[in-house]
Amino acid sequence: MINKLVENIKKTNAPIVVGLDPMLGYIPDHVKEKAFGEFGETLDGAAEAIWQFNKAIVDQTYDLIPAVKPQIAMYEQFGIPGLMAFKKTVDYCKEKGLVVIGDIKRGDIGSTSAAYATGHLGKVTVGSKSYAPFDEDFVTVNPYLGSDGVNPFIDVCKEEKKGLFILVKTSNPSSGEFQDQLIDGRPLYELVGEKVAEWGESCMGDEYSYIGAVVGATYPEMGKVLRKIMPKSYILVPGYGAQGGQGKDLVHFFNEDGLGAIVNSSRGIIAAYKQEKYAKFGAENFADASRAAVEDMIADISQALGNR
Amino acid sequence: MINKLVENIKKTNAPIVVGLDPMLGYIPDHVKEKAFGEFGETLDGAAEAIWQFNKAIVDQTYDLIPAVKPQIAMYEQFGIPGLMAFKKTVDYCKEKGLVVIGDIKRGDIGSTSAAYATGHLGKVTVGSKSYAPFDEDFVTVNPYLGSDGVNPFIDVCKEEKKGLFILVKTSNPSSGEFQDQLIDGRPLYELVGEKVAEWGESCMGDEYSYIGAVVGATYPEMGKVLRKIMPKSYILVPGYGAQGGQGKDLVHFFNEDGLGAIVNSSRGIIAAYKQEKYAKFGAENFADASRAAVEDMIADISQALGNR
Repeated sequence: MINKLVENIKKTNAPIVVGLDPMLGYIPDHVKEKAFGEFGETLDGAAEAIWQFNKAIVDQTYDLIPAVKPQIAMYEQFGIPGLMAFKKTVDYCKEKGLVVIGDIKRGDIGSTSAAYATGHLGKVTVGSKSYAPFDEDFVTVNPYLGSDGVNPFIDVCKEEKKGLFILVKTSNPSSGEFQDQLIDGRPLYELVGEKVAEWGESCMGDEYSYIGAVVGATYPEMGKVLRKIMPKSYILVPGYGAQGGQGKDLVHFFNEDGLGAIVNSSRGIIAAYKQEKYAKFGAENFADASRAAVEDMIADISQALGNR
Repeated sequence: MINKLVENIKKTNAPIVVGLDPMLGYIPDHVKEKAFGEFGETLDGAAEAIWQFNKAIVDQTYDLIPAVKPQIAMYEQFGIPGLMAFKKTVDYCKEKGLVVIGDIKRGDIGSTSAAYATGHLGKVTVGSKSYAPFDEDFVTVNPYLGSDGVNPFIDVCKEEKKGLFILVKTSNPSSGEFQDQLIDGRPLYELVGEKVAEWGESCMGDEYSYIGAVVGATYPEMGKVLRKIMPKSYILVPGYGAQGGQGKDLVHFFNEDGLGAIVNSSRGIIAAYKQEKYAKFGAENFADASRAAVEDMIADISQALGNR
């Protein structure tokens, strides 16, 4: 699946991923009113609004982008109907040829991590049958529990040719509380980065490993160091746009070949119509505003990469 | 909810929690055959088998125990039907007066952590209505992202009088890879323990804080230190039984008042009928075997606490 991700990035010339993190506050009233009219002000109504919102944005952007990253928390908060909308979104994006990164940040040990891996990337056996329950292409994984937590995911990735992005240095202000703590003079995130590189060695695609890392756009200097520590790992970079990261901050996350990083924007794309810059589209045409925001993001990153 | 947990523990005199982690391999054939007969060898069939298995065990043990801990991964691996069985299990256990600890090990940042907290502990708003989607009493949380990841959970706990168990030192062999790394001569898990104590101060119940910690039974010496660092935090202790922890290892996790810890056993209880010791019950009476295993576990821990 890393090969497909790289291929999609080369084809679109857009090392970006659209974060499908639909909060109800982002969804225009006319979409919500229609959904609530049909299903009431219920969890099913919320799920329908989310799904219609996602579908419109995907329809208007899929030809420009290589991948999407639905954040499962935003669906899980609406219970079972929300998770059904998550699954519908995953399936639809795959139909459109997009690589789907399930932002699930799971992580446990042994058979429990294996169960998450099976549910999200693999196939579960029921009697003589088997099923792929959520069937994302990549998922994000939390490394706090060590190799016991990560290896069951890697096993499933090898079997299914799927991939992981492991949290190394997250984009939030307090990420340093534990991640930056110095161990023999070096921050914890570097140790985690080294483990990612080590785990990744056994899972190579053509050019890059199936095992990638998450490093926040908000920490470009750390990104520079981590890029060197994990030369064959794709870096998923959150924190662009709404969280403060800019194109020029991103160059250090890429390798000399112009590959090796994929930058996420969520709110900045899916709620673009709420920004002054894209207000001209109006709430009615929210998906067109998202398309314009995708085009601008691609241009910003291309320019930054061109200037380096 | 910490007050209810403490009250339930005092009432049952059993500082234990039954881990409802139903792998299909644990479920007796007659339960699976009935479920598959009704729903086929499908995800719905698996979910029905899980639910009937859980229900029988809860019916045979609820009067002896204060709490259960369903591990959501074991349900999530069966997709939407599996998560429906999770929800049914949570609701049923609450009806039976049990405190429900959702072992979800979620953790993200800002609005994403808030969404998980809302979905599992709080209420989500849809138009003019609100819903409690999964509605556990406690959940487990991963601290790798720092305060930004934990605070949104704490906010919901304060509002709903619910609680957290934050991963500090996990029970698995490789937990030391990152958690034991020395920072100024002290292991990372101690720093995390200090943060748990700090977070807990603002969320006190009558005797203990809403904010607890997870520390594995397999590391009793570390438990001793962490007990002192977090005097007002309940410690959820996994790793008893199948993972190797024994009653005598557990005494250091408790305070002088005999409270402060709750010990989990999953496989050792729910798959007890597969052990030689309980084989006499037979697969037909698997739930009676679970009851006997609960009684033995309570006796083992009581004896260990009595001997200290």
